[in-house]
Amino acid sequence: MSGTPEARPVSRRRLLTGGAVAAGGALAGGAAVAAAGRDGAPALTPVSTGSAVEPFHGARQAGVTTEPQAHAAFVALTLRPGVGRTELGRMLRLLTDDAARLTQGQPALADTEPELGQIPARLTVTFGFGPGLYRAAGVEDRRPGSLADLPPFKIDRLQPRWSGGDVLLQVCADDPVTVTHAQRVLIKDSRPFGTVRWVQQGFRRAAGAEPGRTQRNLFGQLDGTANPAAGAAADTVVWLPEGPPWLRDSTTLVVRRISMNLETWDLLGRPDREAAVGRRLDSGAPLTGTAEHDPPDFTATNDDGLTVMPDFSHVTRAHVTEDRLKILRRPYNYDGAPTAEGHADSGLIFASYQADIARQFLPLQRRLAERDLLNEWTTPIGSAVFAVPPGCDPGGWVGQDLLG
Amino acid sequence: MSGTPEARPVSRRRLLTGGAVAAGGALAGGAAVAAAGRDGAPALTPVSTGSAVEPFHGARQAGVTTEPQAHAAFVALTLRPGVGRTELGRMLRLLTDDAARLTQGQPALADTEPELGQIPARLTVTFGFGPGLYRAAGVEDRRPGSLADLPPFKIDRLQPRWSGGDVLLQVCADDPVTVTHAQRVLIKDSRPFGTVRWVQQGFRRAAGAEPGRTQRNLFGQLDGTANPAAGAAADTVVWLPEGPPWLRDSTTLVVRRISMNLETWDLLGRPDREAAVGRRLDSGAPLTGTAEHDPPDFTATNDDGLTVMPDFSHVTRAHVTEDRLKILRRPYNYDGAPTAEGHADSGLIFASYQADIARQFLPLQRRLAERDLLNEWTTPIGSAVFAVPPGCDPGGWVGQDLLG
Ligand code: HEM
Ligand code: HEM
Repeated sequence: MSGTPEARPVSRRRLLTGGAVAAGGALAGGAAVAAAGRDGAPALTPVSTGSAVEPFHGARQAGVTTEPQAHAAFVALTLRPGVGRTELGRMLRLLTDDAARLTQGQPALADTEPELGQIPARLTVTFGFGPGLYRAAGVEDRRPGSLADLPPFKIDRLQPRWSGGDVLLQVCADDPVTVTHAQRVLIKDSRPFGTVRWVQQGFRRAAGAEPGRTQRNLFGQLDGTANPAAGAAADTVVWLPEGPPWLRDSTTLVVRRISMNLETWDLLGRPDREAAVGRRLDSGAPLTGTAEHDPPDFTATNDDGLTVMPDFSHVTRAHVTEDRLKILRRPYNYDGAPTAEGHADSGLIFASYQADIARQFLPLQRRLAERDLLNEWTTPIGSAVFAVPPGCDPGGWVGQDLLG
Repeated sequence: MSGTPEARPVSRRRLLTGGAVAAGGALAGGAAVAAAGRDGAPALTPVSTGSAVEPFHGARQAGVTTEPQAHAAFVALTLRPGVGRTELGRMLRLLTDDAARLTQGQPALADTEPELGQIPARLTVTFGFGPGLYRAAGVEDRRPGSLADLPPFKIDRLQPRWSGGDVLLQVCADDPVTVTHAQRVLIKDSRPFGTVRWVQQGFRRAAGAEPGRTQRNLFGQLDGTANPAAGAAADTVVWLPEGPPWLRDSTTLVVRRISMNLETWDLLGRPDREAAVGRRLDSGAPLTGTAEHDPPDFTATNDDGLTVMPDFSHVTRAHVTEDRLKILRRPYNYDGAPTAEGHADSGLIFASYQADIARQFLPLQRRLAERDLLNEWTTPIGSAVFAVPPGCDPGGWVGQDLLG
């Protein structure tokens, strides 16, 4: 059986980043398919979705630059009154231990459903610290400078039930049962310390459904094309390269729940939809190009002398060239229950990672809030910010340098 | 790319039922893994989850004896006042056409997100007719005799928001985006005829996570072990072999939303949990055996003279030997938002197919409602029944023999 540790294939991420050819022999039965990667380079896809493992320990937390898994649960906790630095240390020791085990396909120590803990399916658990955690722990002097509730934007219709949070547990895996189980173990172990503020469950294409392809959101758009590529660029975008030990190798996460109005979107013709984003629906190519990864030409004009990329298209407004101003988007689709009249409750759990919210995210979000054709069909209904502290080595725990 | 029709691998179901070895050569790149099937026979798993297709047309509807996909949406509609036989015919022509296309990886005719319709991922759309449909169409004389709301059981705590329905659309696929898209297309096209009564979204293990293994529910139990095996037995259990054209090759579906109290379940020790079901948690073996598929021995006693299989264990109460009294279970897990105190909202979308509700389902449910140790931790909160009419050939539509 491919579920046994002996036959565990290496993860796709490790194949992509760590010598795919040499690692190929470790795949179950040696079976693997070549699929075109985003730059046309062949990428290997492991055959067993269930047994693939992402490393947990390391200088940086997993689940950030990790190739996005198919399923995610974002769980935000409110710390209980009286929970301070010591209690947070206890909680994070416990949750780190749970995460270290579950991500490697082993049940948690007090796992009441140990059989559900045996299929890692690339599980990652990523810890985020909201502004309130620094206050509760009395370590506000160590809070990343840019970590604060976002200022209000005129497009916002924020609901408290989707906003804020002192601690975030981001649980991602290619298997929905694995996510549910890990979510439950982590929530149970955090009960003495916090209450559940909100949970957002999201999905992307199933593992292996479109190997090597950019995913589509529920508007049908290719979503993720212009993300910084893995490697040096992503490093500059995402990770703090220096600073005290509680900041080096950390990042920040902005989670925005953005409702997408499929009813009005569906009334638009395709040209209008493509103009709203500045890219084609079929290929994802910019309106000035023919292939998904062609760079958009913002100066090209049509016969009327207007720019081919509309001035207020989403991509025109969101585009930045300097790596230090970019963000790494890692969104998930959500789909709640439709109304009696059959109107969908769909949208995006927009999640972006960046080294500095003030430098990278805010100018972008301000520009989009001010003017972006897409705003007509999208509405932010939730918002939260978290620091994502450095990872830890075996024996250590996430947050140790901050709280230990 | 493996997403093109040329490279489309045959579906797992077709491999299992239609000459696996001969079909093997059609797999993308010839890559496939051998995994132990439930009876130890090797089964081939296709490599591309996205491009696998289930046939739509045929004497019997797909999605019943189809190897369960990872994701499901059960959508129940209430017919609008004034919708009768003619309007139902229009609606079912439309929805059949949508289903015939989407299941084969082609967008629906009026698809506003055609790009989302291109990844079939074993999509099936199964149509069910509630008792109200026969009334609305004035064809009550053609209603299957056993199709009526279930009688109340003392264990029930039914909520109207999860109960009843005139039409059911059961949408299953191995990809959650595919399910969401198909659900939306079908709901949009049924709007003139019906309102959405309820939607239940559920999941099982991801495709390829545990090839050939019985899935586990959120209590951690292997769930599905004693289901009738594919072939002759399942045929007797599920399909009506004869009758007028609107009944031959039809079946019925009972959908029960059953909440599972993980909080109290988790307080139990393993021996008590195993006694409640009569099977072991790790292997799924009956308490009188050692392997999952060992037949339980209801006469074996222990030193105290008590039967090893407790008299009121779920399996003891649910076990029947005659095929004509069995049911085919095809359940999905659900996991809603936990409470602030972190209590899970988890359970089973219990779905069972049987030729005759009165002969097969009711005696079983009565026995379980009367006495079943599992009742302590499970509560039915929704209930609905549907006839699943015969399938159709290309050019025909589901329900044609009944309504045409
Ligand atoms: C529901 C809301 C949103 C939808 C449907 C959406 C959709 C898209 C699409 C289709 C693209 C083009 C393909 C790609 O590069 O991924 C794109 C690009 C982009 N989006 Fe969004 N987006 C949304 C919200 C946001 C928000 C809130 C931000 C940041 C505040 C953002 C920042 C960006 C950036 C930076 C790009 C890349 C621009 C470039 O350099 O070409 N998006 N988005
Ligand atoms: C949340 C509710 C339920 C849970 C957790 C549950 C769980 C299980 C488990 C673990 C088994 C043993 C493994 C197997 O054969 O699949 C089983 C068997 C079975 N269950 Fe359930 N079940 C539930 C509700 C029901 C209901 C409502 C019915 C029918 C009215 C039912 C009918 C059966 C039958 C017929 C068997 C096979 C018995 C045999 O012949 O060995 N179950 N169930």
